[in-house]
Amino acid sequence: MDKNIKIILQYDGSRYDGWQKQGNTDLTIQGKLEAILEKMTGQPVEVHGAGRTDAGVHALSQVANFHIPESFFAQTGEYEHENKKSGQPAAEFVKQYLNRYLPDDIAVLSASEAEPRFHSRLNAVSKIYRYHIETADKKNVFERKYIYGFGQPLNVNAMRKAAEALSGTRDFKAFSSQKKVKKSTVRTLTSIGIEEKGTEIVITYEGSGFLYNMVRILTGTLIEAGRGQKSLHEIEQAFETGERALAGKTAPAEGLFLTKVTY
Amino acid sequence: MDKNIKIILQYDGSRYDGWQKQGNTDLTIQGKLEAILEKMTGQPVEVHGAGRTDAGVHALSQVANFHIPESFFAQTGEYEHENKKSGQPAAEFVKQYLNRYLPDDIAVLSASEAEPRFHSRLNAVSKIYRYHIETADKKNVFERKYIYGFGQPLNVNAMRKAAEALSGTRDFKAFSSQKKVKKSTVRTLTSIGIEEKGTEIVITYEGSGFLYNMVRILTGTLIEAGRGQKSLHEIEQAFETGERALAGKTAPAEGLFLTKVTY
Repeated sequence: MDKNIKIILQYDGSRYDGWQKQGNTDLTIQGKLEAILEKMTGQPVEVHGAGRTDAGVHALSQVANFHIPESFFAQTGEYEHENKKSGQPAAEFVKQYLNRYLPDDIAVLSASEAEPRFHSRLNAVSKIYRYHIETADKKNVFERKYIYGFGQPLNVNAMRKAAEALSGTRDFKAFSSQKKVKKSTVRTLTSIGIEEKGTEIVITYEGSGFLYNMVRILTGTLIEAGRGQKSLHEIEQAFETGERALAGKTAPAEGLFLTKVTY
Repeated sequence: MDKNIKIILQYDGSRYDGWQKQGNTDLTIQGKLEAILEKMTGQPVEVHGAGRTDAGVHALSQVANFHIPESFFAQTGEYEHENKKSGQPAAEFVKQYLNRYLPDDIAVLSASEAEPRFHSRLNAVSKIYRYHIETADKKNVFERKYIYGFGQPLNVNAMRKAAEALSGTRDFKAFSSQKKVKKSTVRTLTSIGIEEKGTEIVITYEGSGFLYNMVRILTGTLIEAGRGQKSLHEIEQAFETGERALAGKTAPAEGLFLTKVTY
């Protein structure tokens, strides 16, 4: 029997090529985790992430899971020591092992044993992504890697109207840069909330699932609406035709966070 | 006549050799500001900072001032344009000029015209420095450059007792790494506050002035007190003898912020 370990992790995506492992690069979050787990167990371990964040996108609370052979824990001396200290000793051992070898821009916040059939992506019911925009001409220096420096004022009322037009269960084909579109591009965007915090604008997206680049293209569309450069009619046309060119530009990755996954 | 411009600025000190210009390096905050002001005016400009922060130390609200010849503003076409928009046009022009050329880890928050004799360091009445310590084994990835990852529990009550012993008007010679001690090393430390925020400990120092490395050595001393490795008696001995070796180690720069300067 395997143990199915579920972890919650945060990362600064700035220097990574995103979540998903790609051929011969190991500069992905998944790649970093798998390399450490292989070192730990002596065999390949596949890590599933709830959200396959793009290059440069951050996570406050990404969820992932992977299976570790029971036999590994049985034979690990170190594990037996931990065993005595914790109610979830196997998970706690894995968390500490990962944190010991992960670079300082990735951290495991918690780990627990999940049901054998739990799958972090397939079982996710909804996800929350948050996008941060600075409208002032200079960013706060301590947040400069975590916010998009747009540097111009935005009409938040116009953005809120566009946000309403972008919500619901729709075919989001125009709002994605997915190339192969064999699968359905219909998704449910439950809500888009827009908050002003001083000169910062924070957009919160909650939905059942998101297409490739979807949050960043929705954000680009909302920014154009906030500049008076995208009408509700054009948004409707983008939905109707599925034409990528009718949606807004793709907003930069640096302002985007995967904030929460619910099951 | 010159205009005496006072600016408030923030910076991420991580990649700098501190505030103060040093010979042939320009990797100092002062050096960056002076280079841009020289470019702006066509002549050397000396920038005075309220606190000469060490290499790696950050600032939330550093204060600086410098003199710009009135003639510069009279002849600047760009300035005349700004002139019409703002009640403090000269200061606003300088702020925008600096922010345009400063790297993204230094930002001018505000600028104003000060009295001709105002000097940001000599006129400062008190300064607040804040030091952040993480006692958990892994830092929050988004704050990793702004907190010291101590990674072990600390006895906050013991730290508070030591903080009391360290406050007041005293000769802080033992708590400084100043080499030439021609001038007085007596300073007044008005208060040391210690707060717990989850696994983070924040120490706030308020005083009339600080010696070279003083806040970091005080922090090192408090950490040793919190680990049961430095008694109140030893602290008293450090004050009496002025021996650097009797104080604590110098805590790393990354956890330290110059937070406020009052006049």
